[in-house]
Amino acid sequence: MNYSLFPIGVVHSPFKEKFGIPRQPLLVPQAKATLELLVPYNSVDVVTELEGFSHIWLTFIFHQTMRDRWQPRVRPPRLGGNRRVGVFASRSPFRPNPIGLSVVALDGISNQDGKVELLLSGVDILDGTPVLDIKPYLPYVDSIPDAKSGYASEPPQASKSVWFSKKAETQLHQRDGGVELKQLIVKLLEFDPRPAYKNKPQPDRIYGMRLYDVDLRWRVMDDEVEVVELAPVEAI
Amino acid sequence: MNYSLFPIGVVHSPFKEKFGIPRQPLLVPQAKATLELLVPYNSVDVVTELEGFSHIWLTFIFHQTMRDRWQPRVRPPRLGGNRRVGVFASRSPFRPNPIGLSVVALDGISNQDGKVELLLSGVDILDGTPVLDIKPYLPYVDSIPDAKSGYASEPPQASKSVWFSKKAETQLHQRDGGVELKQLIVKLLEFDPRPAYKNKPQPDRIYGMRLYDVDLRWRVMDDEVEVVELAPVEAI
Repeated sequence: MNYSLFPIGVVHSPFKEKFGIPRQPLLVPQAKATLELLVPYNSVDVVTELEGFSHIWLTFIFHQTMRDRWQPRVRPPRLGGNRRVGVFASRSPFRPNPIGLSVVALDGISNQDGKVELLLSGVDILDGTPVLDIKPYLPYVDSIPDAKSGYASEPPQASKSVWFSKKAETQLHQRDGGVELKQLIVKLLEFDPRPAYKNKPQPDRIYGMRLYDVDLRWRVMDDEVEVVELAPVEAI
Repeated sequence: MNYSLFPIGVVHSPFKEKFGIPRQPLLVPQAKATLELLVPYNSVDVVTELEGFSHIWLTFIFHQTMRDRWQPRVRPPRLGGNRRVGVFASRSPFRPNPIGLSVVALDGISNQDGKVELLLSGVDILDGTPVLDIKPYLPYVDSIPDAKSGYASEPPQASKSVWFSKKAETQLHQRDGGVELKQLIVKLLEFDPRPAYKNKPQPDRIYGMRLYDVDLRWRVMDDEVEVVELAPVEAI
């Protein structure tokens, strides 16, 4: 039997592609997004008293990978790409049902011109993601600090120090919200978004990711990341 | 756009009806269940290394309530049935998408005669529930002990002391697994499964719930619950 589910909202996030998204929610508090409720859920009624909760669960669809084939075993990036674990022992987006689950911080609820939006931070969710459900985070049920977590017992570490080229500094300076964008970039790149098996320095290689309306370009040294530039995104 | 999702497993649990199920997972560790993986997911490959995790998330369908109509605002039982909150500020099973989310303890994985089963405890899930996804619980992401939780800041309290009639004691004594069943019944009824607005004693009223293959019958006094009998379930 199949179940037909539908989006109740859509996420507007700075992350325009999969590469570079934080590995887990709340790792990067500077990653802000909004969740826009869709018709017929776009009323404050459905979120009455939600503002009393500091965190919420989002159940969503991995819409960018949903057409890809899943495999019974996957290679989590943190295991260096060599070891395989069962797909249900991972949080990989390539799953039998393409369901994502993230806890994010709820900073407020906006209700303007008939548009209801949840203001979120700490997101690890792609722009345009369809959301199926919102639930309040209940620490007395959901928080199990001593849970044993097998191969994933250590959180990802922020291992790099991040600095900006003159060009990148100038580009940030010329921009509204440049200070916040700089903080976000530092936090994202500190974690070195490359898979762990690519942990060798490759100073000649330029990496890129789309962030908001720019194409962020950087280079990885031993324990440093240089932000080269914030190029305008090419029209497609 | 709709998304067509399908069960990857089914829960076999002692709870045969909605009334009496613990309000949240892990409140009643004695509530054991199995999650049977369905074809083509019934292989140990898909759960390789999952045994290193003490807890897992289950995303499932509230199959018994899925045809009921949802309302923008609901009355959580803990608020005494008077106050309404938004459906997305609750964990009510009556939701736009009938998606449930529970963290449960993983006690082991069994692989016998081509049947792969996850052995669970602390469940709050109805028998026969279709499961859409399994994810490992990661404390460094999922555990937020200080999260603010609005109207639901206190866990449900075990408020009643539970004792058994002679008849009930005899019925338990005659049964395989009677000791474990008794422990489960005590933990379930300590929480007084009635909605909070029915918190007056009604010593003449007999409550009932189906638990495994019996019809459990009890009576509520001031701060006590008397288990009257474990009647055989009537053939339907």
